[in-house]
Amino acid sequence: MRSFRFQPIGTIRSCFTEKFGIPRQPGLVPEARAALEIGPPFDKAEAFRGLDAFSHLWLIFVFHACQGHAWKATVRPPRLGGNRRMGVFASRSGFRPNPIGQSVAKLLGIERRKGILRLRLGGIDLLDGTPVLDIKPYLPYADAIPEATAGYAPEAPAAMPVVFAAQAEAVCRNADPAAYPDLKVLIAGLLAQDPRPAYKQGHEGKPFGMRLWDLNIRFRVSSDRIVVESIGRI
Amino acid sequence: MRSFRFQPIGTIRSCFTEKFGIPRQPGLVPEARAALEIGPPFDKAEAFRGLDAFSHLWLIFVFHACQGHAWKATVRPPRLGGNRRMGVFASRSGFRPNPIGQSVAKLLGIERRKGILRLRLGGIDLLDGTPVLDIKPYLPYADAIPEATAGYAPEAPAAMPVVFAAQAEAVCRNADPAAYPDLKVLIAGLLAQDPRPAYKQGHEGKPFGMRLWDLNIRFRVSSDRIVVESIGRI
Repeated sequence: MRSFRFQPIGTIRSCFTEKFGIPRQPGLVPEARAALEIGPPFDKAEAFRGLDAFSHLWLIFVFHACQGHAWKATVRPPRLGGNRRMGVFASRSGFRPNPIGQSVAKLLGIERRKGILRLRLGGIDLLDGTPVLDIKPYLPYADAIPEATAGYAPEAPAAMPVVFAAQAEAVCRNADPAAYPDLKVLIAGLLAQDPRPAYKQGHEGKPFGMRLWDLNIRFRVSSDRIVVESIGRI
Repeated sequence: MRSFRFQPIGTIRSCFTEKFGIPRQPGLVPEARAALEIGPPFDKAEAFRGLDAFSHLWLIFVFHACQGHAWKATVRPPRLGGNRRMGVFASRSGFRPNPIGQSVAKLLGIERRKGILRLRLGGIDLLDGTPVLDIKPYLPYADAIPEATAGYAPEAPAAMPVVFAAQAEAVCRNADPAAYPDLKVLIAGLLAQDPRPAYKQGHEGKPFGMRLWDLNIRFRVSSDRIVVESIGRI
């Protein structure tokens, strides 16, 4: 079958400078914001006329960090504790025959800054630098099927309680809100999803690090909560 | 920016042998069924393990009939009567910089017939022969946002009443249900969407033809209803 070539229309700029810690689906952490920077020749204002009347949009993107891996017929979804295999087409893993992703995002605004057309987005689950192939308006009458049944992932994963040690608390309080918006709520929201790889769950008390922008967030997981121990520069 | 190349995993076999008459969004006509035929090397049964526990899936596909057209910054959505321009990124038109589409479909079954792995789908809006790049399970907790606001397309278009003349009625009654399943309900559902191009609306009484499989469905539109006048072979 013939293949098809596509050129990205833009690039995601997000707080997620590594894959670890990214929410496993969009919308789980509203404070996870990003900008989609539209590249030429796609950055004509009229190409986006009317989009600001939509609250949400779809992003069709490339899992660029998954490129160049051979695909496997089955994957181990984190949802199943990493010890059961499901078909790659019954999962949303980025390691798939065509590493194309699709995410719904909240549209927070459209602006031009230093000549670059930017869409400001919320609730995202995308790595910084993600190439975006297309955007489309979200149409609830066609796209929202609340009664759909969803096999092994019927609802959002349960959230873990998150507490902050004094140093981490102080860093959040003093952080520049322009550079690190909603830092504490963001960290709490992300860690509540328990971002550890499934196969590491059970190793309680072991320290983990998560990167956001140029920050390293150190935390430990106990049986009933997650403790943010410290936040420092990378 | 670097470009990306993708190879389709399969091809849609649908009743829609031309673009005219295809529902403008998925889900509007549940009887619009199709099969997605998976091509090698993607047709391994284990790659679909677990998918049958999901009621709906996403199809990421190529608008292959829109390939090779230069994109324009604005389009005229049928929803707006074809006389107002919206940004191409505020529309779901197939004529877009990267002609990639995304549709949700009901998963009716997975089967292997004559050695070909086929997903049977309902509520589709896809032309016969559409190349499919990826499928993903529909996750209502992430994908269903009933409260989203949607600019100029807040809800499904109003349906028109459809009546059948005697010849059309008889053809539907006598049609082989294996070859033309639910023919009358399908035709009524499709025509209720008023498939005429927006710029032709107003030309009441003019005859139109719509192709389904190898059938030509002739109809006229009056101010308050659509009359299916005759059904014949092409």
